[in-house]
Amino acid sequence: MKFHTKYLWFNTERKREYINITREVEEALRESGIREGMVLVSAMHITAGVYVNDAEQGLIEDIDEWLESLAPFRYDYKHHLTGETNGDAHLKSLLVHHEVIIPVTDGRLDFGPWQQVYYAEFDGQRRKRLIIKVMGE
Amino acid sequence: MKFHTKYLWFNTERKREYINITREVEEALRESGIREGMVLVSAMHITAGVYVNDAEQGLIEDIDEWLESLAPFRYDYKHHLTGETNGDAHLKSLLVHHEVIIPVTDGRLDFGPWQQVYYAEFDGQRRKRLIIKVMGE
Amino acid sequence: MKFHTKYLWFNTERKREYINITREVEEALRESGIREGMVLVSAMHITAGVYVNDAEQGLIEDIDEWLESLAPFRYDYKHHLTGETNGDAHLKSLLVHHEVIIPVTDGRLDFGPWQQVYYAEFDGQRRKRLIIKVMGE
Repeated sequence: MKFHTKYLWFNTERKREYINITREVEEALRESGIREGMVLVSAMHITAGVYVNDAEQGLIEDIDEWLESLAPFRYDYKHHLTGETNGDAHLKSLLVHHEVIIPVTDGRLDFGPWQQVYYAEFDGQRRKRLIIKVMGE
Repeated sequence: MKFHTKYLWFNTERKREYINITREVEEALRESGIREGMVLVSAMHITAGVYVNDAEQGLIEDIDEWLESLAPFRYDYKHHLTGETNGDAHLKSLLVHHEVIIPVTDGRLDFGPWQQVYYAEFDGQRRKRLIIKVMGE
Repeated sequence: MKFHTKYLWFNTERKREYINITREVEEALRESGIREGMVLVSAMHITAGVYVNDAEQGLIEDIDEWLESLAPFRYDYKHHLTGETNGDAHLKSLLVHHEVIIPVTDGRLDFGPWQQVYYAEFDGQRRKRLIIKVMGE
């Protein structure tokens, strides 16, 4: 069994941002030389997420509005008694989830026609990290 | 390490449908000959999901109503400027998630008493695909 | 490839409870002797979840209130025609998800600074089970 581990860093300009990282994941897969197995892509912070969906700008805006409606920014989260103001970012992370597993077949991401991997930042404007771990043979 | 990859196709009669695929996943596991490891079950479309829960008809109707209440069909999603009308299906897919990992122990799905795998279609009436990838030894 | 499988049992005092199981997962990893790979942590019941987020008490209360607002206890779920009263617990489980995959690098959980693994009980006061499966080399 072979393993290839890689970390990506982000420092977004805006608080919330959705970044297509499909190419970076494909690059990590190429570097690994793995032909069969899987790629784990996982945010290393609790105010960010990783998801698989479409690379369509209108949809990304819909997703952002929808997440804000279901897990809104508010002043009165109990978490804010710690001095933080990012309670909503924790809830958005839970909703979207912090990781995906992508199947690898014949040396490529075994995706359907429109699937793309996104890093979803919910509390940006500072350095955050993500792990890509390719596992297989 | 051994791998066994299989694809299932769906073409549902209704827009939204919930299909118990536990038997198909068990069959893929048997074919693989794998005794220890995991099964990745992942929708290959961005308007479908995969989840593990109970095979109880009333509950499935509750799940469908609940998903519609949290990620409703609407005309005014920005995604619809592309000509699509399935913005809600993308959001439902994000909510339910598109994949699960099932542990394999002693050659069987290591499930609790009521766990079943479901394919959740949110934009059906056309051919859609799902991947089952068994990995282990 | 090596495997190490372990089951944890819970019997919570309250209906809903959030239990930090990071130490138990780390212990399973140590027992396995695995240095590279992953840990699958998965609830074996359909009214519980597993998630990765912060160990901060206020936040845990926020998460609980938020889950109750999005997937509330109600009398009129169709699932209750079976005699059950835990429809909300099934929906909370879908929202939070029932499993996580944690990367393992150099013999440790490859987590960011604040990531902790939680077992989320949504229908407790009875014995429930969770599986930890360490896989790798």
